[in-house]
Amino acid sequence: MFNVRIITKYTFQMGLLITSNRLDMLKLMDADDNKSKRLVSLMKKRGFIQPAFELYGGVAGLYDYGPLGGRLRRNVISKWLNHWISLGNIVEIDSPTITPEPVLKASGHIGAFNDYASECKSCNSIFRTDHLLEGYHNNPDALDNIALDNELLKNKIPCPSCNKSEWLPSEPLNLMFSTIIGANKGGRKAFMRPETAQGMFLQFPSIYRHFRGKLPFGAVQVGKGYRNEISPRQGMIRLREFNMAELEYFIDPEKDINYNLDLWDDVQIKLVPDPGKDELTEKRYTIYNAVKEGVVRDQTVGWFMIKTFELMLELGINNEYIRFRQHEQDEMAHYATDCWDLEIYGSYGWIECVGIANRGCYDLKAHQNVTKSNELKAWRDFENELEIEKYVCSPIQSIVGPRFKEKSKLISDHLEKLDASKINFPFIINIGGEEISIEENMVEIKKVNSIERGEWFTPHVVEPAFGIDRIIWHILEHSFTETSKENDDYYTILKLRNKICPIDFSVYPLFEKDGLDKIALKIIDSIREIDGINVNYDGTKSIGRRYARGDEIGVPYAITIDHQTIDDNTVTLRDRDSQEQKRMSIEELLLFISKY
Amino acid sequence: MFNVRIITKYTFQMGLLITSNRLDMLKLMDADDNKSKRLVSLMKKRGFIQPAFELYGGVAGLYDYGPLGGRLRRNVISKWLNHWISLGNIVEIDSPTITPEPVLKASGHIGAFNDYASECKSCNSIFRTDHLLEGYHNNPDALDNIALDNELLKNKIPCPSCNKSEWLPSEPLNLMFSTIIGANKGGRKAFMRPETAQGMFLQFPSIYRHFRGKLPFGAVQVGKGYRNEISPRQGMIRLREFNMAELEYFIDPEKDINYNLDLWDDVQIKLVPDPGKDELTEKRYTIYNAVKEGVVRDQTVGWFMIKTFELMLELGINNEYIRFRQHEQDEMAHYATDCWDLEIYGSYGWIECVGIANRGCYDLKAHQNVTKSNELKAWRDFENELEIEKYVCSPIQSIVGPRFKEKSKLISDHLEKLDASKINFPFIINIGGEEISIEENMVEIKKVNSIERGEWFTPHVVEPAFGIDRIIWHILEHSFTETSKENDDYYTILKLRNKICPIDFSVYPLFEKDGLDKIALKIIDSIREIDGINVNYDGTKSIGRRYARGDEIGVPYAITIDHQTIDDNTVTLRDRDSQEQKRMSIEELLLFISKY
Repeated sequence: MFNVRIITKYTFQMGLLITSNRLDMLKLMDADDNKSKRLVSLMKKRGFIQPAFELYGGVAGLYDYGPLGGRLRRNVISKWLNHWISLGNIVEIDSPTITPEPVLKASGHIGAFNDYASECKSCNSIFRTDHLLEGYHNNPDALDNIALDNELLKNKIPCPSCNKSEWLPSEPLNLMFSTIIGANKGGRKAFMRPETAQGMFLQFPSIYRHFRGKLPFGAVQVGKGYRNEISPRQGMIRLREFNMAELEYFIDPEKDINYNLDLWDDVQIKLVPDPGKDELTEKRYTIYNAVKEGVVRDQTVGWFMIKTFELMLELGINNEYIRFRQHEQDEMAHYATDCWDLEIYGSYGWIECVGIANRGCYDLKAHQNVTKSNELKAWRDFENELEIEKYVCSPIQSIVGPRFKEKSKLISDHLEKLDASKINFPFIINIGGEEISIEENMVEIKKVNSIERGEWFTPHVVEPAFGIDRIIWHILEHSFTETSKENDDYYTILKLRNKICPIDFSVYPLFEKDGLDKIALKIIDSIREIDGINVNYDGTKSIGRRYARGDEIGVPYAITIDHQTIDDNTVTLRDRDSQEQKRMSIEELLLFISKY
Repeated sequence: MFNVRIITKYTFQMGLLITSNRLDMLKLMDADDNKSKRLVSLMKKRGFIQPAFELYGGVAGLYDYGPLGGRLRRNVISKWLNHWISLGNIVEIDSPTITPEPVLKASGHIGAFNDYASECKSCNSIFRTDHLLEGYHNNPDALDNIALDNELLKNKIPCPSCNKSEWLPSEPLNLMFSTIIGANKGGRKAFMRPETAQGMFLQFPSIYRHFRGKLPFGAVQVGKGYRNEISPRQGMIRLREFNMAELEYFIDPEKDINYNLDLWDDVQIKLVPDPGKDELTEKRYTIYNAVKEGVVRDQTVGWFMIKTFELMLELGINNEYIRFRQHEQDEMAHYATDCWDLEIYGSYGWIECVGIANRGCYDLKAHQNVTKSNELKAWRDFENELEIEKYVCSPIQSIVGPRFKEKSKLISDHLEKLDASKINFPFIINIGGEEISIEENMVEIKKVNSIERGEWFTPHVVEPAFGIDRIIWHILEHSFTETSKENDDYYTILKLRNKICPIDFSVYPLFEKDGLDKIALKIIDSIREIDGINVNYDGTKSIGRRYARGDEIGVPYAITIDHQTIDDNTVTLRDRDSQEQKRMSIEELLLFISKY
């Protein structure tokens, strides 16, 4: 594992820089409700994101990434993957989205992965019960069905459709999409996965082999997850099919790992620790102190918190709009020992975008219990070898041989592996389906000394799970900047970070004639030879209009070709954010781009 | 669009080089049935690919990519994306996998995307009818249910389960996974998409806007596709959930595009043209001649064939094992004008891995017909403006005004847009849901001259569709090389191409002591600073064992640190394929890697 700090002074200062404008930005995002409407409209007009299947009237909770959004999504995922894989002990895997029922029964998703729904007695509309209680109860998520029904009654909650308040008892609602594998007769029940994690737990044997048993190590998976919401609202925040990115980090709970958390001693993060019964309060900590003071209960969790914070800054999330909120005891899954949500602030308020949880050995144990597999364990060497006294059965061959003939070898092998301290004669063993009774005269009990070098144990798992669409939404919100206003139109700059933006460079010939367009295309050809750069050409309308078109989709640099280019091989490079222009030779330009 | 040839002399010579060993390789792949078993076992042991959910007994047709396979998959997808996006007029989009029923009804997937299944009268087992006829009929895929039933009868096909031959009439079987969006009561029927293409057709308006209406342009999408096979066999070839990569290229069928096909005049590809009723024969062509002679009927299809061929070589497919087979008339979808499958040869025989089809305007028209949307069209300027005589309705305001009052403006606007040459009085128009009768005295018919600058038309689509898993399988088969054989064990080298291989460099300290391991880790740190390089560390067992472990997973270069490194800062670099070793300074090494 290569535990280096990748948060650079530059990254962090960018964050601090934004901080000084904090009030302005808050104002822009909160006070003006139409701003997020203008963002949504820009996103659609320019092909970032839009509701899917709109020609067919749309389906709530399903979104498309368009010509620019598709590239943005890919860039965010690449950055995410690279952030974790470059640690050196983390690999990417991929498993199916279709998941057979027994897997999700074992994992607890069937039965537990339920919300409750209430049906109106009067008009038969169905609603999520916790949604009905919003504004009436602080944490309706955490209530069981009886408590939910009581709250409906106590608060006389009206039906949003018919306004009456007569509810049938709430019923659990499985939020997974179900389907059948194989021909319908005799097919097997399955679900679209609600998370990518189970596919990684089931691949544990393969990952363990890959790392030759050397913990800690991790696996990541990026792909679609599914949740059949009853009535999804909130745009990109609550989707029925979403882009997930999860990391499962397998550790030996008895081994301390030094994460050098003091590397980040100049970085303050905002925490909202579980207050018990008190009010939530936000406090700033260094991650080192948060772990030292026990606010963050687990140092691996703490390490993932700071690494995740770094990643968010790299992606272009404003550091002032990030906080970590600790799960309250009754909100946390019963097996988790500590759980923090990274929340990002935007037009929907504080939204959970990452969950970082210590899941203990819950998942691997759950699959062990059902499958009886021995492959979901790891080996731990003892610090010192142990000498242990054991009692073993030694078969008396002169009796066992004649009695069991060709089976006597199998029976002897079986007997030699038994722990003889727990035996009462006669006892039954099972050899190839046949029950065989072993009597006292067949074996001799011997005391032997044995050396134990280590033991098998079930690793614990720390899991950071990312909602990619929610993160992308907030990247867009935090980048969306409106400057001047003219005739009711704002001048819009999407201040996406370099390499996150869908287009890196735009090339504009002043006119599409006099050979300027050909020079532009030739420059584009040269830029395309530089790996990973996305460059586009725009030749129509005035240069001012083209700058504006580029600014509103976040192109960081515009390259303009004019008549002077023909004379002296120079172009102008315009910076999106400062709007400054610099004249340079084409060679200087290509050098600049190669370092981009 | 940047139509350059990216196939390099080097790439192609690599292909030719393999050709000279053709017979050897064919022998290795065909004659020795155990070779592909050894490949499957290696793939599982080293974490490339393996059946999914094995701990739960597995599910046919679902596969996992493991710690090495996950990276291989990502590399293949990146190469694929970059190959197309670098053309400059192609963008990546992403749409949901869950697809509401009306979309797939319009596209023809419900109703047509069926195979037939036959049920045994005696034991009630169900089989795909065309599978039952394998070996009895040349092309059972192309038969309808009556012909299929006749063939079953004629050939007295026995039931694979009970060996009797009594079949119920075959029934169409929808091979899509179905599910329900929303709460089950009142939910909407949906399917997991059988292809990614429909999502791209539905995004046509957004893509059209992005390219500001300038055809030709294309969109790509990489993601999961689903096909609920009855009884999938053949490993990675026939999956229920697969990785697809599709490209939809929108063109104006009336405009000739010059693809400079003569750029590839030194590249011969093998074609198997539709022979009509004759035997299949394989012929070599340049793509230029194949299009000129009309063997390939469409030049856009021809261009995608050669660009796809280039891509296959780049990915490491052996050029001798690639051929293009033209669809026979009765095998081709009725709307397609030309269709070629790129087939790759391996242990399953010749397998379709890419389909390149001219789909005409079928798909966009199908969605227009159902949604009545005008947004699925493109604008075409006439070469010369047309002056046209038209008859229009001119409302007589003195009658319309008093009669319809506040509605008269809407009614007048509506009337002015009508083609008056087709009107019979009285007629009904619909204004805001209300039916209004227009009588002869309300309007005057006028003849006007109008200038028409162009027209709206439905673009045609050429679609190359790639089965990523099948391609990956053949990359592995073509790379899998067994050299010497010792004690029943082959020495295995997986000759994956650079940047396709999951691990680019391995670093081996001769011993994990004397500081050699620390130097190794330091070198790894420096290598990690070079973008996109995946380097790993291996410190256990003998150097020979480590070379072998690296060779069998296709690591192109091994870097060994020994005691001389401490003295003079040099390391050895070993080439996987030649097994040659070269001593060089760490600086030279890093320079070499930065150019990798």
